[in-house]
Amino acid sequence: MKTLLKEIRGNPLLWLLAFVPVVFGAARFKPEAHTLLFVLSVLAIVPLAALLSHATESVAAKTGDAVGGLLNATLGNLTELVIALAALRAGEYMLVKASVAGAIVTNTLFMLGASFLLGGLKHHTQEFNRVSARMQAGMLFLATIALLVPSAIVEADSGTHAEFTNKLSVGFAVLLIAAYGLGMLFSLKTHRELFGSESHGEEGEEPWPIGLALGVLAGVTVLVALVSEIFVESVQEAAVSFGMTQAFVGFIVVALVGAAAEMASAFSGARKNRLDLSVGIALGSASQIALFVAPVLVLLSYVIGPTPMNLQFWPGAVVMMLVAALTASLVTNSGRSAWFGGVLVLMVYLVFAITLYLLPPGGQATPP
Amino acid sequence: MKTLLKEIRGNPLLWLLAFVPVVFGAARFKPEAHTLLFVLSVLAIVPLAALLSHATESVAAKTGDAVGGLLNATLGNLTELVIALAALRAGEYMLVKASVAGAIVTNTLFMLGASFLLGGLKHHTQEFNRVSARMQAGMLFLATIALLVPSAIVEADSGTHAEFTNKLSVGFAVLLIAAYGLGMLFSLKTHRELFGSESHGEEGEEPWPIGLALGVLAGVTVLVALVSEIFVESVQEAAVSFGMTQAFVGFIVVALVGAAAEMASAFSGARKNRLDLSVGIALGSASQIALFVAPVLVLLSYVIGPTPMNLQFWPGAVVMMLVAALTASLVTNSGRSAWFGGVLVLMVYLVFAITLYLLPPGGQATPP
Amino acid sequence: MKTLLKEIRGNPLLWLLAFVPVVFGAARFKPEAHTLLFVLSVLAIVPLAALLSHATESVAAKTGDAVGGLLNATLGNLTELVIALAALRAGEYMLVKASVAGAIVTNTLFMLGASFLLGGLKHHTQEFNRVSARMQAGMLFLATIALLVPSAIVEADSGTHAEFTNKLSVGFAVLLIAAYGLGMLFSLKTHRELFGSESHGEEGEEPWPIGLALGVLAGVTVLVALVSEIFVESVQEAAVSFGMTQAFVGFIVVALVGAAAEMASAFSGARKNRLDLSVGIALGSASQIALFVAPVLVLLSYVIGPTPMNLQFWPGAVVMMLVAALTASLVTNSGRSAWFGGVLVLMVYLVFAITLYLLPPGGQATPP
Repeated sequence: MKTLLKEIRGNPLLWLLAFVPVVFGAARFKPEAHTLLFVLSVLAIVPLAALLSHATESVAAKTGDAVGGLLNATLGNLTELVIALAALRAGEYMLVKASVAGAIVTNTLFMLGASFLLGGLKHHTQEFNRVSARMQAGMLFLATIALLVPSAIVEADSGTHAEFTNKLSVGFAVLLIAAYGLGMLFSLKTHRELFGSESHGEEGEEPWPIGLALGVLAGVTVLVALVSEIFVESVQEAAVSFGMTQAFVGFIVVALVGAAAEMASAFSGARKNRLDLSVGIALGSASQIALFVAPVLVLLSYVIGPTPMNLQFWPGAVVMMLVAALTASLVTNSGRSAWFGGVLVLMVYLVFAITLYLLPPGGQATPP
Repeated sequence: MKTLLKEIRGNPLLWLLAFVPVVFGAARFKPEAHTLLFVLSVLAIVPLAALLSHATESVAAKTGDAVGGLLNATLGNLTELVIALAALRAGEYMLVKASVAGAIVTNTLFMLGASFLLGGLKHHTQEFNRVSARMQAGMLFLATIALLVPSAIVEADSGTHAEFTNKLSVGFAVLLIAAYGLGMLFSLKTHRELFGSESHGEEGEEPWPIGLALGVLAGVTVLVALVSEIFVESVQEAAVSFGMTQAFVGFIVVALVGAAAEMASAFSGARKNRLDLSVGIALGSASQIALFVAPVLVLLSYVIGPTPMNLQFWPGAVVMMLVAALTASLVTNSGRSAWFGGVLVLMVYLVFAITLYLLPPGGQATPP
Repeated sequence: MKTLLKEIRGNPLLWLLAFVPVVFGAARFKPEAHTLLFVLSVLAIVPLAALLSHATESVAAKTGDAVGGLLNATLGNLTELVIALAALRAGEYMLVKASVAGAIVTNTLFMLGASFLLGGLKHHTQEFNRVSARMQAGMLFLATIALLVPSAIVEADSGTHAEFTNKLSVGFAVLLIAAYGLGMLFSLKTHRELFGSESHGEEGEEPWPIGLALGVLAGVTVLVALVSEIFVESVQEAAVSFGMTQAFVGFIVVALVGAAAEMASAFSGARKNRLDLSVGIALGSASQIALFVAPVLVLLSYVIGPTPMNLQFWPGAVVMMLVAALTASLVTNSGRSAWFGGVLVLMVYLVFAITLYLLPPGGQATPP
């Protein structure tokens, strides 16, 4: 407990934890103040995500490389998963899909682009392990294809029944999870030497004792779940009062909030000229969401959702995910980066964000 | 003749030749047993394709490198061509187009993916000549573009007349064949050193004497043509009784049957750590179908088909061919492979196959 | 003045300058002879573009590398810009958009492909600086995405208001110009060593004295503007009498005329085995048009056009620009070229040109 308090004192990001009790208080006494609840829940999720990430790494460090890597990779997007689960339970499938697509696009374009830019402003050119970056970009591309092709094919086919789309989605979900499992086996067991230089942990941070780590993991997950519930309930109304479309909230706001802790690691890695770390976090998170989070949500929708959810995305999301995956392939291909590469990648993200912010709802580019 | 018999005795695949007389007998005495005829004709085409492939290689070995390479490359997809011709004569244009698109997708995704997987299960990582793989992937990509752009442009344009589409298709067919001829000149004459390590023949096999080879080539081509006729006639009805859509039969079944012999070579090359051979066969076959088989079929439709056939594919096929070509570019880019790369490529193929198997007919994703 | 006359005597291309007074005379005395005026104005623009290019290089050589490079890069597409401005003033927005899209496609596919082919016919294989080619191809790809995504998203969305599209276009125009400015900073200031081997100037040519260069720059720009006005006025009627569609004229004819001078430099560089120069001119021009010319035209349409112009392209143009950018990425990826690569790239261009030439107007593939 002392370690935890010391950690919190030393890390200004964690001071935001003060907002956790505030958001619960506000939710109880001012349940109709949606805009306030939205802002407070965002401020509370960010430090919780950081704690979650540190706890996962500490458990990973204790349990040995293989199991630890597995834990680290699987729990790395726990925040995104918990937020999406809250939306799933509320039956907000459009928000779930927007946040899945948005997490892929944000991790690939914003996290990667900002890492290149921040690193490039400090270092003239930066090198990273191009074999592993290519493999991850290829994995992301193929995962995106597997996720998108059904949308493209089904979208083109107005005569298809919803029942059929659902059956197809369950099949693909199982397939994607199988691919994810095999990818684990590959990167943690049979070919782990290829992924050598990308350790997920911050070098400076000391791992916590295992008891503390497990306790934080359990406790913080519950807290994230509770705050996510408030977040999901308030986000719709808050969006209206901020003049944001539903699509913008899911794609941009939820994705940025969910990935805040990972972004802190990726950017700090880039500044320290450890771009392998940044590229690994950005592309690893993105492909994990495509291969693991999205299919798990489809399968869980049968258990906890009001109706089954499928893998069909609206056309604008399909275009954005494909462009993000292609961009990742192109910019990581040479294994070198400089600041202008980051600018271009961020520009593409900005184009998407502006379009989603301005687009009037009701068209095909926005979700139905 | 003795050589031939010895060859047949030593190669279990060729024992399937016994089904050739059986299929003819069945076609004569049970012409209405479509499912039986379908299964028998598949079983008979596979060993005939293997004989054809060996005969082509023997002729190629005798006639010297340049002419031999030309023969080898041009006759390599003879089975596919003969099956497609049978469908063309029957006016089954949808089956022809599905089998052309399916052959490109199957060769690129299934043959390449399974080669990577089978090779990777035996060898930790495998290297292949990335200059020649890149060139072939680039050729395939550009060929696919040339094949697809008309579909995309014409598809978007509902006001276009069929007559205009036909005129455009003939023009592009001539263009593609010209590109194929120049590609031959390039890889066999002016820059043959770039394609050095990819010999199409199996190292262990002895070439047949020229007389036997030519005789087998002629005789087996006639047999394949006759069996293909039975195959094309029975495939529609058999598809119904197996619960398969027309698109699935053309895309998956015909493509797998037509490429069976080449797949045997590609997989055996991958197991022997000669991945250059596998990549060369897979990408070479795919680009040959795009640059040679497809345009020849368009031109021949004016001679032997009931009406002219054009190069316009349905949207689902366009998406699949493009994804296949992009995937080939991405995975061959680094010149290295490991088993998980094969898994991902096969997964994309499986996504396509499942979609085609399950999709109800009548939509845009399936052919009209 | 003597230098100028000597230059004109020594360069047969510049003898075409004789057509400049001829076209003005014809425009005054035969204003209704549209076909004649069209041919004469094309013949007059080509040598003026060559003079403009030489004057720009001379000024660049005098003002030092940084400012000179800036001038060179910004004025390099002056001809295209002036022609487009004439069309903009006439309110011919479809012609403006077709010429922007056509310039990107023509520079990428025709200029690059013909350089590879012409260079490859003389030299067995050619190498070029693949780091800088990759960076330029990546820049072009990302610029194209930024240009296209709005079209794709807005296109899919039939309920969008014109007013909204215009607002979005202005925002993206500002974004693209900012990216262009940062790209300048990158290639001329912070990372100029990466772009070392691509000098835009011809080695044999001597720079003009600064007074002459500035005078030529000013005088020739005025002449190009005047001739462009005649060109734009006559092109519509001439297109009809030549049987060319509006799209073909904008995409192919205007683009080839506008880039004539740069093509002469690129092809001569390829023949001299200085492929870096050719690739730099081709991809540099293309990305400049996407990042600078197109957004400037959008902004200027508010000042000099009858109504605001937006960045929305018709679907056929979107497909072609994307294919061109992807093709550029693929063929420049390896840093090596041979003649057949050029053939394939030219084939894709030919497919586009034939389609545009033959397509009946009125569909979605042609502009509305």
